[in-house]
Amino acid sequence: MSSKLVTIVAGVGAGTGASVARKFAKTYPVVLLARNPENFESLAKEINSSGGKALGISTDISDSSSVKKAIETIKKEFGDDVGASAAIFNASGGFLRKSFLELPEDVFTTSMNVSATGGFLFSQATLPLLLKGVEQKSEHPPSLIFTGATASVKSNARMASFAPGKWALRALSQSLAREFGPQGIHVSHAIIDGVIDIPRTRELLKDLGPEAKLSADGIANDYWWLHTQPRTNFTWEIDLRPAVEKW
Amino acid sequence: MSSKLVTIVAGVGAGTGASVARKFAKTYPVVLLARNPENFESLAKEINSSGGKALGISTDISDSSSVKKAIETIKKEFGDDVGASAAIFNASGGFLRKSFLELPEDVFTTSMNVSATGGFLFSQATLPLLLKGVEQKSEHPPSLIFTGATASVKSNARMASFAPGKWALRALSQSLAREFGPQGIHVSHAIIDGVIDIPRTRELLKDLGPEAKLSADGIANDYWWLHTQPRTNFTWEIDLRPAVEKW
Amino acid sequence: MSSKLVTIVAGVGAGTGASVARKFAKTYPVVLLARNPENFESLAKEINSSGGKALGISTDISDSSSVKKAIETIKKEFGDDVGASAAIFNASGGFLRKSFLELPEDVFTTSMNVSATGGFLFSQATLPLLLKGVEQKSEHPPSLIFTGATASVKSNARMASFAPGKWALRALSQSLAREFGPQGIHVSHAIIDGVIDIPRTRELLKDLGPEAKLSADGIANDYWWLHTQPRTNFTWEIDLRPAVEKW
Amino acid sequence: MSSKLVTIVAGVGAGTGASVARKFAKTYPVVLLARNPENFESLAKEINSSGGKALGISTDISDSSSVKKAIETIKKEFGDDVGASAAIFNASGGFLRKSFLELPEDVFTTSMNVSATGGFLFSQATLPLLLKGVEQKSEHPPSLIFTGATASVKSNARMASFAPGKWALRALSQSLAREFGPQGIHVSHAIIDGVIDIPRTRELLKDLGPEAKLSADGIANDYWWLHTQPRTNFTWEIDLRPAVEKW
Repeated sequence: MSSKLVTIVAGVGAGTGASVARKFAKTYPVVLLARNPENFESLAKEINSSGGKALGISTDISDSSSVKKAIETIKKEFGDDVGASAAIFNASGGFLRKSFLELPEDVFTTSMNVSATGGFLFSQATLPLLLKGVEQKSEHPPSLIFTGATASVKSNARMASFAPGKWALRALSQSLAREFGPQGIHVSHAIIDGVIDIPRTRELLKDLGPEAKLSADGIANDYWWLHTQPRTNFTWEIDLRPAVEKW
Repeated sequence: MSSKLVTIVAGVGAGTGASVARKFAKTYPVVLLARNPENFESLAKEINSSGGKALGISTDISDSSSVKKAIETIKKEFGDDVGASAAIFNASGGFLRKSFLELPEDVFTTSMNVSATGGFLFSQATLPLLLKGVEQKSEHPPSLIFTGATASVKSNARMASFAPGKWALRALSQSLAREFGPQGIHVSHAIIDGVIDIPRTRELLKDLGPEAKLSADGIANDYWWLHTQPRTNFTWEIDLRPAVEKW
Repeated sequence: MSSKLVTIVAGVGAGTGASVARKFAKTYPVVLLARNPENFESLAKEINSSGGKALGISTDISDSSSVKKAIETIKKEFGDDVGASAAIFNASGGFLRKSFLELPEDVFTTSMNVSATGGFLFSQATLPLLLKGVEQKSEHPPSLIFTGATASVKSNARMASFAPGKWALRALSQSLAREFGPQGIHVSHAIIDGVIDIPRTRELLKDLGPEAKLSADGIANDYWWLHTQPRTNFTWEIDLRPAVEKW
Repeated sequence: MSSKLVTIVAGVGAGTGASVARKFAKTYPVVLLARNPENFESLAKEINSSGGKALGISTDISDSSSVKKAIETIKKEFGDDVGASAAIFNASGGFLRKSFLELPEDVFTTSMNVSATGGFLFSQATLPLLLKGVEQKSEHPPSLIFTGATASVKSNARMASFAPGKWALRALSQSLAREFGPQGIHVSHAIIDGVIDIPRTRELLKDLGPEAKLSADGIANDYWWLHTQPRTNFTWEIDLRPAVEKW
């Protein structure tokens, strides 16, 4: 495998992003993108001190110049001809579960800017690197993976500041899967349907037992599985939920 | 029926918007919103000179201050306590059917701004008027209707500057249907799956016969039908296509 | 309009079937199919005594010889060259909302026989008559309408003796819409998502007010609306639910 | 791991079924069900002679007494308290891609009997064994996996003898996932969207290159991946298609 293939993860925090980064870091150098350096600093240190290679870059994924700078930083670090083994979009704007008429406009637009425009900018920035991965005949087909949610396929009352962005992101991923699959890139969309087990959610669903929440490491394993599927057997979409989840 | 109920149509052009305005103008005063006054001027004149009442307002549906001004203009014309019988969102940003890596960012964001943010702003502006329609016990449940497309449910290659916005709009409509249905407002989403028969499309599909394109007046009839459904029988979604359409 | 066009309704009971029959009987002679003559006798009498024309035929819709006999009876009554203006499949097998391991096999197969095989047999029997309606240039495109349910698109726990048959029927309707639309026949599927207001459901949802249940006459109006759509504007699928329904 | 856990595969032929059996046979004794013993005899020999354990049973999956006999045979061989690690339904009735009016009734009903009733009977027969797997605290959650197709989610013209059965099976799998997930059983549905590379399809899609067809071994790997997901991260549905597939 070429040393010139990196995995880029956008939206690194306490949950899925960090687990995915750790998982892919066992095989590839990883680039960690988050707006707030606090979100990747200790993770980068952890990976770098345990035999992996991680580069954190403070990036506003909804801002094209910030995303461009991130790519420049990647090239400075890994060479102009760097390719990508995987690019994983795990960012989400905040949202408010409020009556529609009480939603501030900026909550809606920030959510759209991160989920939709952010997904667009991240894809345009990483696809050329993923295509280089194809040229370099990477062991596994280069992967572009998007993290979705229950709200990617169902738009409930009071979810108007979240679901539209997630539906837009899912549409983006489907269009890209159809365009770039034949070019050798594996585009996937994962519907995370449940609460992820992270420090912030520790108190939730406790009465349903220790397996009522999604494991972030489990999600990372599933993303790795998607990554290792051969060209003959690409999965566009999977759903993931705890066994006890109501759906 | 109260004279204080108006129908507001956003996105009035040569096709669906104009037909819908004409249809609803037979029963209600209509407000025509379009960025370019050329798109509503002759239509307003036509309606006003044939016994109806139409008010055109130049509005950028993706700009909150412009939308607010439009509502102020409506209140100046029809009274502060004006209610709405129907609000119909028919706007669409332009798009380019291009390879994803050739899409300019502003084409993507403009499309999102019109379809998603525009839908949001239009809904926040008109729902208070629709709720007044409920209070005034309008003959038919006040209607909020969104115009969708094939790309609202299918995201093909090279459609990344169109489908994400349409999926976002569909998500918005579903969330609003669930929140405002119980409050007496009928929220619908129409999937227009085919070419609409307007001057600009005259040369398309000619070999398939005179019925290969959707009739804009037909769409308007269907929106009127949705509008007249009673509270016991609300339709959220319909698809509409010519009999000969492949799908 | 030719006197030779009849509307055939399968699954006539206290609710949708009877309302649909009454509605279409205002324009066409109607044929009422039900296994048990008690389900159509008084309705046929009512229609025949109020200026319409109704013919009830005891038919087991899941039995091909019974369906064939019904068509022979129709031809005997209306002539060998009789065509159909509409054919409406409203039959449903019974089901048990039970744990899957307690479901008797015959409950599952009876449900499949009515919903899936019944839909197949009804369609094969009525499509030749509907095609005659096309030849005779009926005023409205001949319609083949299938009644679905919430369980046509969602398969909940304990619904295994109902949902599979309804999904199968929806699939049948989609395939037929694609094959026979271009031949001028309008195939539709209605998702009835809620409780229908009939004597048997009188006590249900009372606390939600008088509009918490679907009106069977309202459904019939919607079927009639589908029937009158022109060839340029066919709807395959609509959903129908009370404004207050949770979904 | 208990020696009392077997994997049962229904619908063993040249493609997916055989690959799945070989894959699971590396860990579990496998039971091979097919109507025609020719479909499992050489495979059973191959597995038994290469260190695995396979038992072939001639079974008509659409016939409840035949399915019951198969379970009795399994218990005779592996003990009355045998449990199942996985049960994989891979059977499909034949179908004809014909104009709907030319479809013989028995082609439709045979397809329904295998896909829908067969899925029902197989599930009722294997779920008690899968529940024993839960009791025995199997290493991986016992899995019930159904093989779907493009026609499980799309019902094209001329597919009326195939799609309805596949939609019914998908509905069954969704209902079972919701009922038995909380009981610790992992129910999945795989949408196989493309041509599988088996001797019978050797000449198909040759011009699209060696990766234009799905690998049956790849599908088996994916089923194994589904099988090894922990209770916190169950996938109900995946799609699988070659990178170059149009969809």
